[in-house]
Amino acid sequence: MSVFRPEIEEMEGYTPGFQPPEGEYIKLNTNENPYPPSPSALDALRNACGEDLRKYPDPMTAECRRVVAEREGARPQNVLCGNGSDDLLNMAIRAICPEDQAVAYPRPSYSLYSVLGRIRGARVETVEFPDDYSLPRRELARTGARLVLVPNPNSPSGTMLPPAEMGRLAEELEGVLLIDEAYADFADTDCMALALRHENVIVTRSLSKSYSLAGLRFGYAVASERLIEGLAKVKDSYNVSRLAAAGAAAALRDDEWMKKNVQQVRRTRERLVEGLHEMDFHCWPSSTNFVLTRPPEEWNAGELHEELFGRKILVRYFDTPRLRDCLRITVGTDEEIDALLDELRDICLTA
Amino acid sequence: MSVFRPEIEEMEGYTPGFQPPEGEYIKLNTNENPYPPSPSALDALRNACGEDLRKYPDPMTAECRRVVAEREGARPQNVLCGNGSDDLLNMAIRAICPEDQAVAYPRPSYSLYSVLGRIRGARVETVEFPDDYSLPRRELARTGARLVLVPNPNSPSGTMLPPAEMGRLAEELEGVLLIDEAYADFADTDCMALALRHENVIVTRSLSKSYSLAGLRFGYAVASERLIEGLAKVKDSYNVSRLAAAGAAAALRDDEWMKKNVQQVRRTRERLVEGLHEMDFHCWPSSTNFVLTRPPEEWNAGELHEELFGRKILVRYFDTPRLRDCLRITVGTDEEIDALLDELRDICLTA
Repeated sequence: MSVFRPEIEEMEGYTPGFQPPEGEYIKLNTNENPYPPSPSALDALRNACGEDLRKYPDPMTAECRRVVAEREGARPQNVLCGNGSDDLLNMAIRAICPEDQAVAYPRPSYSLYSVLGRIRGARVETVEFPDDYSLPRRELARTGARLVLVPNPNSPSGTMLPPAEMGRLAEELEGVLLIDEAYADFADTDCMALALRHENVIVTRSLSKSYSLAGLRFGYAVASERLIEGLAKVKDSYNVSRLAAAGAAAALRDDEWMKKNVQQVRRTRERLVEGLHEMDFHCWPSSTNFVLTRPPEEWNAGELHEELFGRKILVRYFDTPRLRDCLRITVGTDEEIDALLDELRDICLTA
Repeated sequence: MSVFRPEIEEMEGYTPGFQPPEGEYIKLNTNENPYPPSPSALDALRNACGEDLRKYPDPMTAECRRVVAEREGARPQNVLCGNGSDDLLNMAIRAICPEDQAVAYPRPSYSLYSVLGRIRGARVETVEFPDDYSLPRRELARTGARLVLVPNPNSPSGTMLPPAEMGRLAEELEGVLLIDEAYADFADTDCMALALRHENVIVTRSLSKSYSLAGLRFGYAVASERLIEGLAKVKDSYNVSRLAAAGAAAALRDDEWMKKNVQQVRRTRERLVEGLHEMDFHCWPSSTNFVLTRPPEEWNAGELHEELFGRKILVRYFDTPRLRDCLRITVGTDEEIDALLDELRDICLTA
């Protein structure tokens, strides 16, 4: 007999994107920011590497809550910090979803949602995005789910749903709407205001992408005080380390650094899309730091992915029905994107 | 209607020990180490505060797994790393305990076990420790629990159960035995060998206490490869940050630093126990960096706790039936313990 719960025995864990040995590859597969984190965040981190690490962190990460509250026009009681936004997604599912009841999300999106739902023992209901990745609002509302997860902008499509549509969804749901805004800083707009207006909306953010701090692990949730209190009950007591708290507070205070890098990424995103269009690749409109693209019919996306891998360029390939004719390409530096486009031209135009 | 699961709505979260503003108090309430972390760990941390933080950490923390495996005479496949050992306890409960089935532990012990069990929706069964905190082995086996949690040495008693007894318990259980060894480095012996000998034993460790790194958040589990694989399925993808991984690997490589501090803490522990005995306080034999003590009958432990608080000394008081006549005192520096003993003498002997 297995010692594990049957659901766990059957499932496979989440598969993160491949992390190659340092330095050998141009890494355009896991949506990391090509630019370094804020120098003042790195200074704050170095200063926190001292004797005080012998002491536990503040369980509620009060300083970060204040900084986030100020940034988002909320009160500290509307904010909860996590060990990356994955930690917050995990808390939401644990606190909200009863076993055997529905958690729902549109698909293709972040494959972790399904893993977290199954770990909880919830019934995972998915609704297919249409090909233009517009919101399947009525279908999501019809699931009757206790928790609906919508990434916005979405990964892997990179597409953005209008905040007004998301507000309507929040009103139509019986349960809670969690809007996963890991990529929001790369978009023109966001849904943060909904978290403060609706009693049933949670918005999560991450410092991994726009703030170039994927290695630090820090994310936050904004919601009504009542929702935050419930989520906090299921968090690990000291989920955010002293270093993550120190680095995150400093990075959030240096918003200008983040915005400058985001502007550069958005410029390079245009360059990437133009280059792909020239080769007749279809690109979904991206509000993120990556582009989902479909090569022309004569090219097999899986083979292109392999071919690029052989040329030391990593892009993301998902071997699933909706995505197996596509590649997801992270926006790197101009040089990295030029190298990618050169290799693609070499493969596609000279073959 | 509440948006949360009924169990979550009803419960209160775990209450960590009070963290006062910096510098005002002598802090003997949360079992932090009074000595700083290894200088080479701090160097490694400072070196990791750089551009690479823009990238995700290694999902399986391979370098730390290797260092732990070497330390414990295991293979890397027998090791799983966590965001503190709380993260690993959380994974074990999520992966192993079906809803409505039993998770069991002896009590009084770590109050987080109950919180984690209730979050999971499991049936939480507790077995009372006898007054000498020996192992209620048959009672624990009789619960039929899928997961039995035993802290060894135990908190808040500080007492140690013999590894042979723990081995017998592992053999008698149908389910998994998780031995929480957060304090093992302060004891004369430990149960690590059981994790490599029994298919149903998990041993968890923490760098928070003996390695003076409570603020970093790093713990590890050692168990059979099959158990580790199942636990890894439910972990957050990037649960250990780049900084936690870098600091932990360096700290574990500098075992000598930890051992030197542990020796000093053990000497000060004797000094504390002697001082308490002189005032006729009962002390349970401690294998940890704290002492559970019962003042003579004429003194009310809760009032002593308040009185010490007024004198800027924090000790831990648990207002529960088994513990309300006791205080749990963390072993600080000799100076801190002398200050505590002076205040206690002032309160108890001059009253």
